[in-house]
Amino acid sequence: MQLRKNRIRFTRINHIFISHLHGDHCFGLMGLVSTLGLLGRTADLHIYGHEDLERIFQPQLNYFCRDMPYRIVFHAVNTSVSELVYEDHKVKVHSIPLKHRVPTCGYLFTEQPSDNHLIKEQMDFYQIPIKDIAGIKKGGDFITDDGVVVPNHLLTTPGPAPRSYAFCSDTKYTESIVPIIQDVDLLYHEATFLAGDEKLAAKTFHSSARQAAEIAKLANAKQLIIGHFSTRYKDLSLFEDEAVSVFANTAIAKEGCEFSVPLSTR
Amino acid sequence: MQLRKNRIRFTRINHIFISHLHGDHCFGLMGLVSTLGLLGRTADLHIYGHEDLERIFQPQLNYFCRDMPYRIVFHAVNTSVSELVYEDHKVKVHSIPLKHRVPTCGYLFTEQPSDNHLIKEQMDFYQIPIKDIAGIKKGGDFITDDGVVVPNHLLTTPGPAPRSYAFCSDTKYTESIVPIIQDVDLLYHEATFLAGDEKLAAKTFHSSARQAAEIAKLANAKQLIIGHFSTRYKDLSLFEDEAVSVFANTAIAKEGCEFSVPLSTR
Repeated sequence: MQLRKNRIRFTRINHIFISHLHGDHCFGLMGLVSTLGLLGRTADLHIYGHEDLERIFQPQLNYFCRDMPYRIVFHAVNTSVSELVYEDHKVKVHSIPLKHRVPTCGYLFTEQPSDNHLIKEQMDFYQIPIKDIAGIKKGGDFITDDGVVVPNHLLTTPGPAPRSYAFCSDTKYTESIVPIIQDVDLLYHEATFLAGDEKLAAKTFHSSARQAAEIAKLANAKQLIIGHFSTRYKDLSLFEDEAVSVFANTAIAKEGCEFSVPLSTR
Repeated sequence: MQLRKNRIRFTRINHIFISHLHGDHCFGLMGLVSTLGLLGRTADLHIYGHEDLERIFQPQLNYFCRDMPYRIVFHAVNTSVSELVYEDHKVKVHSIPLKHRVPTCGYLFTEQPSDNHLIKEQMDFYQIPIKDIAGIKKGGDFITDDGVVVPNHLLTTPGPAPRSYAFCSDTKYTESIVPIIQDVDLLYHEATFLAGDEKLAAKTFHSSARQAAEIAKLANAKQLIIGHFSTRYKDLSLFEDEAVSVFANTAIAKEGCEFSVPLSTR
């Protein structure tokens, strides 16, 4: 329903990353998987998560989705170490071990390095043949017919820096994630409680808004989104105020919000 | 979310009746059950449905709801015969065998007969003692000290007729349900398709709006609600028009609608 409401095309979803096996993070999976089948999907769907995910969901799939026109591929993620869980020509996904009541990990999404931009004048000057262009875009030097090496930096300017997004929910405050998410462009970090309830946060393995902002500051993130607010608080602006006092560029995750990560040069 | 949006108190839900094990009729159960636990429920929750329901959901409950503060009691329902599946002092619930692609039944909810209303003048005239009042309300006669029998109909007028509601989804057109729901006050009957697609309806074991209205007419229902419309149709008024032409007192089930069944005298 939320995908429809937010006009996200179902066919664009090919990989689903599950942080942990608590109901608010995985009960919607069966409905989504089933709806994709009813919509006639044929492409494989890859689901990443703790090994219990397959053990728990496969019997349901067997029962409810016997005749599904597509295949689900489960990928077990070791939530206790940061490892590469997925990679294609556009993006890499690493797990981020978190500290919660059950095995939990976040996910770091990093763009693959983009091609260098060609300097047109230099292309013309050295009369570079088409066949060499792809290699130069990837950072290669050019060698003339006379054997002279023209270094890449004379031929290109760097493309935009690869962008990154880290999803960290649910977790207690843990600085162990900082090296993994260092310099991330956009950090989502849970903020279930306010700082006044940090004892309760520690007990339930959640974080406060202040703690989320501390992590963003330590990791030198460019922007922070906080969410997963406890329903005990009625005024979400308290979360924003608390986080902003530690890390200025903080936004509140509200249903339907969109956040863009701008391109930047290296 | 729908319960919250419609301000229905969670504590009022003690019995859940599942028609069949298709995702759109049972995937929400785990979330509801889990939320009730987080809200601190302690009272037993009774769930009625095909025997596979327990087999499929118990492993999930064991995994996700280990420490739940309340107990779930599954009741296997034989979907191939109409039988009493639940009864208390206010209501009886019978299953209604339906014809769908998997074992399916609807449910008929019938109020228990209400007490007769006492005729105050007659109470005074016969000087009826308090101790005899309850029996007379239930239909008993009064015997005077002299042994004279005063028949109940002189002492009371009938209370309101017990009201009834039948939920029939999902099913192909089947007149076999008519005797079970005869004279029902309010009938919900699925109407996935329009009459022009009745071949498709039969193939997928669903009904058309026209067929739902035929059932309402045959059963002498007082009011019909139709729902479960296929998303292939954009204009729901077509369903209403088609049904109303067969059974006038038809309404469309829209999210958040409320329907009341008025009391009537016998």
